[in-house]
Amino acid sequence: MLYNILQNVRAKAPLVHNITNYVTVNDCANITLACGASPIMADDSDEVVEITGLCKGLNINIGTLNQRTIPAMLAAGKRAAKLGNPIVLDPVGAGASKLRTDTALKLMREIPFTAIRGNISEIKTLALGTATTQGVDAAAEDKLDLNHLDDSIAFVERLAEQTGAIIAVTGEVDVVVSAGKVACIYNGHAMMRRVTGTGCQLSALIAACLAANSKTPFEAVAAALVGYGLAGELAARRLVKGDGNMAYRNYLIDAIYNMTAEQFKKGARYEYR
Amino acid sequence: MLYNILQNVRAKAPLVHNITNYVTVNDCANITLACGASPIMADDSDEVVEITGLCKGLNINIGTLNQRTIPAMLAAGKRAAKLGNPIVLDPVGAGASKLRTDTALKLMREIPFTAIRGNISEIKTLALGTATTQGVDAAAEDKLDLNHLDDSIAFVERLAEQTGAIIAVTGEVDVVVSAGKVACIYNGHAMMRRVTGTGCQLSALIAACLAANSKTPFEAVAAALVGYGLAGELAARRLVKGDGNMAYRNYLIDAIYNMTAEQFKKGARYEYR
Amino acid sequence: MLYNILQNVRAKAPLVHNITNYVTVNDCANITLACGASPIMADDSDEVVEITGLCKGLNINIGTLNQRTIPAMLAAGKRAAKLGNPIVLDPVGAGASKLRTDTALKLMREIPFTAIRGNISEIKTLALGTATTQGVDAAAEDKLDLNHLDDSIAFVERLAEQTGAIIAVTGEVDVVVSAGKVACIYNGHAMMRRVTGTGCQLSALIAACLAANSKTPFEAVAAALVGYGLAGELAARRLVKGDGNMAYRNYLIDAIYNMTAEQFKKGARYEYR
Repeated sequence: MLYNILQNVRAKAPLVHNITNYVTVNDCANITLACGASPIMADDSDEVVEITGLCKGLNINIGTLNQRTIPAMLAAGKRAAKLGNPIVLDPVGAGASKLRTDTALKLMREIPFTAIRGNISEIKTLALGTATTQGVDAAAEDKLDLNHLDDSIAFVERLAEQTGAIIAVTGEVDVVVSAGKVACIYNGHAMMRRVTGTGCQLSALIAACLAANSKTPFEAVAAALVGYGLAGELAARRLVKGDGNMAYRNYLIDAIYNMTAEQFKKGARYEYR
Repeated sequence: MLYNILQNVRAKAPLVHNITNYVTVNDCANITLACGASPIMADDSDEVVEITGLCKGLNINIGTLNQRTIPAMLAAGKRAAKLGNPIVLDPVGAGASKLRTDTALKLMREIPFTAIRGNISEIKTLALGTATTQGVDAAAEDKLDLNHLDDSIAFVERLAEQTGAIIAVTGEVDVVVSAGKVACIYNGHAMMRRVTGTGCQLSALIAACLAANSKTPFEAVAAALVGYGLAGELAARRLVKGDGNMAYRNYLIDAIYNMTAEQFKKGARYEYR
Repeated sequence: MLYNILQNVRAKAPLVHNITNYVTVNDCANITLACGASPIMADDSDEVVEITGLCKGLNINIGTLNQRTIPAMLAAGKRAAKLGNPIVLDPVGAGASKLRTDTALKLMREIPFTAIRGNISEIKTLALGTATTQGVDAAAEDKLDLNHLDDSIAFVERLAEQTGAIIAVTGEVDVVVSAGKVACIYNGHAMMRRVTGTGCQLSALIAACLAANSKTPFEAVAAALVGYGLAGELAARRLVKGDGNMAYRNYLIDAIYNMTAEQFKKGARYEYR
């Protein structure tokens, strides 16, 4: 059962290296702690190889990438690959600038990512070279069609094949795609889009789940998506008059902190297709 | 009515580019989302021109400026100017170091800012070359005299003329000054000074309001100040025993998220002078 | 009484310069404001000497150190030393990478720190050259033995002698060691480890306490540790169903904001040994 994935994170408390953006880095650290793992952030080329060597997983997020951190991402990724550690890519804003698109593609060429998570515009950019990315959010034109899922995700399947990575496309409905496997995840809440960095948090959570479940990576990614989406629903139920996106952000991470087997069993909404 | 300004932000959901400091960047992103706009943060010279080209507004905040980000600020500002997009300057700590003062002045020479928002010490530094800036807060000696407002803000009016920008001086009372126009805003709460980055948040909010109301920039700036000051008052009313500056910070942004026409109409306290 | 230390911070509201990591910088700023001091963050070599000259104290935290900020740390530290201002070092992750260890040691050689605060693995690394640091948390093997405290802290006492600094080792029990003085502090709560940056926050608080109490530095450090540990206990008492590490983080800083003489007197648990 997918909940075991989350239990393993709590039991093993893996140390996870995050090279991420300075906008949402604090939330990434706190959700890593909330799920029972331990975060370390380091992005200088002079130390990332060593730091990643202490860890059980690596999360690379290009949210505020720059000329100083890009080489560090590459170096850390190569080291983690040598160690056989799971590696996550969050291609924040791929398609919004040449620097982001090129960097994401370069990282994908040089690092064997275990999982790549993005919104549909970002994933389309990586898979097809074009999309209608607008800033860091998915464009309205880019949408999955659940009635024609096979056609709709053909490009995701090709990307999964080409890269060997598990591809997670998150949005109103999430899909997780790996060679021959597709999961659709229906958990989530519209208010998650009103908090900065929910995508980043999810990628950090995926990295923690992979770090503690390296032999079942597809289930690890799926469990992270179900758990986080469910946390979004549980958080919404706690909202009281006056609460806005800041209260919601606290409730969201706190829901991960407190998630029980019973909540998960009762609330998980996903299917393998 | 000024509330329409905020309504337009929700209706148009403009994408706003922020080049800001790493201390309060998460709050800037979350207040941008709270008011209904969408933030993107990017500060590398290799992408800022492209990123700002996707956006409807730009906010430049020099809070933790450095040699890597200053050229990015200049490049983004020039591009936004070419596009005719509104541009905000938050000269955090101008007067506290030569680097900050010189950078703010250089930015003002090279970029036609739509609005400049600072505390009175920062604005005095930019207008007169001297002030008693102490860190990032206004010095006690620097104060507006409402009984002799004309004398008190003469230097602000000159700065508005010289730069063509709307100048917003925020403090116990806020003044917004443009060619021939002055607004005084009485909303606000003392506890706002006990939360880091309330000035930064306000500048991000101003940028969002300008991005959705580019034809009425004076009203856009005034509405942001009234709305944020009022949010400070509404936040204070939610405080319960045990709450401190962290609870207040959450309530503040949540008040922007939830602000209604009725609250605004009832609570707005400002006058044109 | 130690509570006077905290009262002095509120009365004097010292400006404190923090060169710290981008993960927890916002919390460092907000705890500085919560305790009644005023933070300024600046890390560019072109301004740190000037900025630190405006301040009453300096806090250097190597959490996300890089080639750009290390020279700034050195320059600021030397300037603060010349001014006779208290200077704090938080050697985050010393032992986890050569860059961190070497930088911490270099800073210690070139800057006369007033206080150095770390977990036992970090302090062991600085004192003995080796430890079992794992990431940014103390390793389980590194533990103080209260029954044989003298033996257990011999290396801390030597480090205090060599550096002339007050050494604060924080963990389940905290010890503060200076020439001929030892204090043990029993305040604290296990949940503090589930929030990112509680160590960083504490170092910022120490810097604020030292800045307002420069003539009684040992007591200033001890008071910060007692106050923060007590805040951790008070925060835990506010937890309600659904609350996790994010709610706790808010309660923690808010407890510093609201701490009364009565709470402190009743709750402080420490002894001089």
